[in-house]
Amino acid sequence: MKVATHHLRCTECGAVIAGSAVNSIFRCPDCNGLYDVIYPWSPNTGSSDANNSNLPNASALRWLWQERRTSTLPLDQSGVWRFRDLFPILENFDNAVTLREGNTPLYDLPRCAKAIGLNWLAAKHQGMNPTGSFKDTGMTAALSVAADRGFEWVACASTGNTSAAMAAYAARAGLRSIVFIPEGKIAWGKLSQSMDYGALTIQLKTDFDGCVRILTELVTRFPIYLLNSVNPYRLEGQKTPAFEILEQLDWQVPDHIVVPGGNLANSSALGKGFIEMHRLGLISKMPKISIIQAEGANPLYRWFIDSNRIMRPVTADTRATAIRIGNPASWRKAANIIDRLGGWCEQVSEQEIALAKAQIGAEGVGCEPASAVTFAGLKKLVALGKVAPEERVVLILTGHTLKDSQYTIDYHRGELLTEAENAQISAADQALHTALRKPPIVLEPDSDIVLHALESHMKLSVTA
Amino acid sequence: MKVATHHLRCTECGAVIAGSAVNSIFRCPDCNGLYDVIYPWSPNTGSSDANNSNLPNASALRWLWQERRTSTLPLDQSGVWRFRDLFPILENFDNAVTLREGNTPLYDLPRCAKAIGLNWLAAKHQGMNPTGSFKDTGMTAALSVAADRGFEWVACASTGNTSAAMAAYAARAGLRSIVFIPEGKIAWGKLSQSMDYGALTIQLKTDFDGCVRILTELVTRFPIYLLNSVNPYRLEGQKTPAFEILEQLDWQVPDHIVVPGGNLANSSALGKGFIEMHRLGLISKMPKISIIQAEGANPLYRWFIDSNRIMRPVTADTRATAIRIGNPASWRKAANIIDRLGGWCEQVSEQEIALAKAQIGAEGVGCEPASAVTFAGLKKLVALGKVAPEERVVLILTGHTLKDSQYTIDYHRGELLTEAENAQISAADQALHTALRKPPIVLEPDSDIVLHALESHMKLSVTA
Repeated sequence: MKVATHHLRCTECGAVIAGSAVNSIFRCPDCNGLYDVIYPWSPNTGSSDANNSNLPNASALRWLWQERRTSTLPLDQSGVWRFRDLFPILENFDNAVTLREGNTPLYDLPRCAKAIGLNWLAAKHQGMNPTGSFKDTGMTAALSVAADRGFEWVACASTGNTSAAMAAYAARAGLRSIVFIPEGKIAWGKLSQSMDYGALTIQLKTDFDGCVRILTELVTRFPIYLLNSVNPYRLEGQKTPAFEILEQLDWQVPDHIVVPGGNLANSSALGKGFIEMHRLGLISKMPKISIIQAEGANPLYRWFIDSNRIMRPVTADTRATAIRIGNPASWRKAANIIDRLGGWCEQVSEQEIALAKAQIGAEGVGCEPASAVTFAGLKKLVALGKVAPEERVVLILTGHTLKDSQYTIDYHRGELLTEAENAQISAADQALHTALRKPPIVLEPDSDIVLHALESHMKLSVTA
Repeated sequence: MKVATHHLRCTECGAVIAGSAVNSIFRCPDCNGLYDVIYPWSPNTGSSDANNSNLPNASALRWLWQERRTSTLPLDQSGVWRFRDLFPILENFDNAVTLREGNTPLYDLPRCAKAIGLNWLAAKHQGMNPTGSFKDTGMTAALSVAADRGFEWVACASTGNTSAAMAAYAARAGLRSIVFIPEGKIAWGKLSQSMDYGALTIQLKTDFDGCVRILTELVTRFPIYLLNSVNPYRLEGQKTPAFEILEQLDWQVPDHIVVPGGNLANSSALGKGFIEMHRLGLISKMPKISIIQAEGANPLYRWFIDSNRIMRPVTADTRATAIRIGNPASWRKAANIIDRLGGWCEQVSEQEIALAKAQIGAEGVGCEPASAVTFAGLKKLVALGKVAPEERVVLILTGHTLKDSQYTIDYHRGELLTEAENAQISAADQALHTALRKPPIVLEPDSDIVLHALESHMKLSVTA
């Protein structure tokens, strides 16, 4: 397999720099735009063509990727680095830092599908990564670049999942990591991870965007490698679940991918993966990609329904902490993907998120609240006729249910939603909530008492 | 590959019953002993011989197991069912219930190894299973038996991890599940999962052993399938990590496996896996298996150092909730494994567990407190000369760090250990604690202030 080089191209003005160039803030010096990593097989590179015989061969790639599954080498056992032929970003692959990320399950969700009238629905569960979120797939790539380029310090600003992933991979590589988080509204389960993996955590008395601003200043003054979502190498790892989905579906392209929308790098990364596969002839058509946001953190949704298509940051507020981002750095990339592949942007309420999470959980597949926006949004797309019953849809679940266990506890105790939120729930949804909510029962240790309680519960369940 | 049948044999009196027999409490009616699942290749079955040509062929098995890694069938993608040839426990494999469990990483721990003078040390991370603990490997097997035999209800008594696993697999299979837990000292993160997966949770006003007693009464009065650790089919799934470890080490048998000791089914399951592999010629020698308990929940340790070898239940108390079991149901099976394979039993203090967990975390590999007893115990075995520097040791990490994030938060805030516990820490260990503890710093959002804090932190880290 041929080793290719890569370049960075500004997504705004198109300026290209060498992949080996060090740009500490990963923004174009001319226009402040974000970079994309490009290869000879990337679209619009001018110098290449999909039929070029120097490009990787589709059949050879499929065979190689499958063969690597039987290898005991750490890089081959990684569900990210197994596809390394399509992201030649390291000088030396010995510098790759892996925790055996990827290889995540694609679960069918028959009951969720039936509930909304689809024939088939599946969830690609990226929460089954080592630190419990999809961020691992991107972090293994970008942290490896940091190690490859000789950095000793890495840092990010994060609401939680990114910091956990960065801290774990930095520890694995023997690098020091610094996490900047806004003081206050954080999921402690996520913060616990970055401490566990040995990161230095700095809580700044500001919001998420303020953390990003400080960090951006720091990396220009001190050799710290920036691992925020603006780092384009993270997207190179995050595009690999697109490859895995195709493998798992025996290369039958699904019709529709539904992704939660927070900082918006994930949807664009997956879209990049599909586009590159299409360019190389690995697939003959592309899925639509739709992005779902929480009502309280919906800047892309507002852009989508705005006839002038203007992006305005919002003050973010949602219990789905992983997507509580009001000023998403990668919005332009995500917007490009929606425009290019088709698909929609939808917003969902806190009540809708809670119900969707419980429905996914009842399939034996837990997820964090931010992941559940996918199913909540899909319900709306189906109701609006934008997704037809025969379409094959894959939801991207981004985090493990253990990432925010307090949310689950609060939900089942009936303490999650406010009275005002509850009042907005339809009768049909309220019946679903009642059937799905499972608050613990406290009983005396006596088998007669327990049996009696079970009998009444059975009757209850049958009628619910 | 030949399909074999299985039987259940009492581990106390040796009485054998058919595998298809329904015994609701999984205890021998004659002597109350637990059952082992036995096959034609099991030791001491009388009717079989390891060289018997009717038995599975070692080379064919190795080849088949490797080939299945490239398959997209759910059963083949499972790191448990991929080895189904060695646990033919279902009438119909279509009834197998899988969440793509197993296929867990084997991480090398170079810094932990160096800290205690070993050349090589690895951790098999069973916390990387779908619900975050090793229980998934056993639950996929036993829950599948429940589905195969037509049960509609399943139940267990559990301190947490078992209930999470049971609830997830039951939901996957469309069965109803009931979790019995002792009221009070529970890890809420674990309880949140069983609620999320739709289980009915019943908190009984008694301890763990009291829960088991009530449940045992219930299953004789109502068609509920018992999924506690006495269910011998769980061990059939839990033996498969032994196969995975050998695959991952290219069939080079490690010298020593170190396992946390709670209900003690896991150590015996792994031992059974190694013994069966040895009988079938898949390996030519067997590892030692050592079991580590928390000082506050150490009945096996007391048995081990008792010259009369008498097992006496204890009142369990440790922050490592997953192994807080004073009267372990499977103690005899575990004792048999220690006697048969060699190895030791050790106990470790709360301070030693906390330090070991932080050291494992600093390798980028988080785990729940119960998992960390393995490294804490290994330190003692090395110090006592029972493990030599050149021996190849594999620690079994049983749960994900997210299973008990409060423990991690308390540790890094310096709020975990009591003054009395802190006073018992040696100066050398205290220095390690100081270097590993990473309490969050709160700073004003100003890059000068942050840079100043980082500079002092760097100096601090260099001298620590």
